[in-house]
Amino acid sequence: MDPDAVAKAFVEHYYTTFDMDRSGLSNLYQDNSMLTFEGQKIQGNANIVAKLVSLPFTQCKHTITTVDCQPSGPAAGMLVFVSGTLQLAGEQHGLKFSQMFHLMPTPQGSFYVFNDIFRLNYA
Amino acid sequence: MDPDAVAKAFVEHYYTTFDMDRSGLSNLYQDNSMLTFEGQKIQGNANIVAKLVSLPFTQCKHTITTVDCQPSGPAAGMLVFVSGTLQLAGEQHGLKFSQMFHLMPTPQGSFYVFNDIFRLNYA
Repeated sequence: MDPDAVAKAFVEHYYTTFDMDRSGLSNLYQDNSMLTFEGQKIQGNANIVAKLVSLPFTQCKHTITTVDCQPSGPAAGMLVFVSGTLQLAGEQHGLKFSQMFHLMPTPQGSFYVFNDIFRLNYA
Repeated sequence: MDPDAVAKAFVEHYYTTFDMDRSGLSNLYQDNSMLTFEGQKIQGNANIVAKLVSLPFTQCKHTITTVDCQPSGPAAGMLVFVSGTLQLAGEQHGLKFSQMFHLMPTPQGSFYVFNDIFRLNYA
């Protein structure tokens, strides 16, 4: 399958799940997964999901501007680089963000998030 | 050595070289290196350096806002995620950018850039 299509499908699934029910992202992280969220380092499925669920807003909407992807090496991983806008409920302006994912294959032929780095780029 | 210190040292070296003499970046890419520059995919040391050297400005200055890093897996690679501002000579306002590097170890105990994805986030 075309890697760009896989990356786009992953990104769409990730942010749709984030915006509907963040606890659903649990399926995408494993115990060796890493998240760096605005400089804060968090490791492992449970800690990552707890962090995402506890973010201080209830409703949000991600709009994707760009998706780039590259193969990450012999382990058949894939790097996905996203830029977009995060609109929080009740806020007038969206926040620009960029985020990178390193997806690694699962034995079931799917992918999980091994690396995740998120940054807001205040405009 | 502390991975965050390695990442910061790499980033400082990369952008200092970029701003002084882009052709000097040739030492950091190998023949299997990949660059996605504003959506354009380029592969291999020679093509990547040719692209960087041909960018339509002569003088520029990168200012780094954030540097995040994570280990990328068993191959001892390192993911480095950068946000910052690119100031072009003669332009009033800087351009926000974000960029990610996947550094892989060399037999000499150094690193080279295996993956490189660059995006401007127009503010």
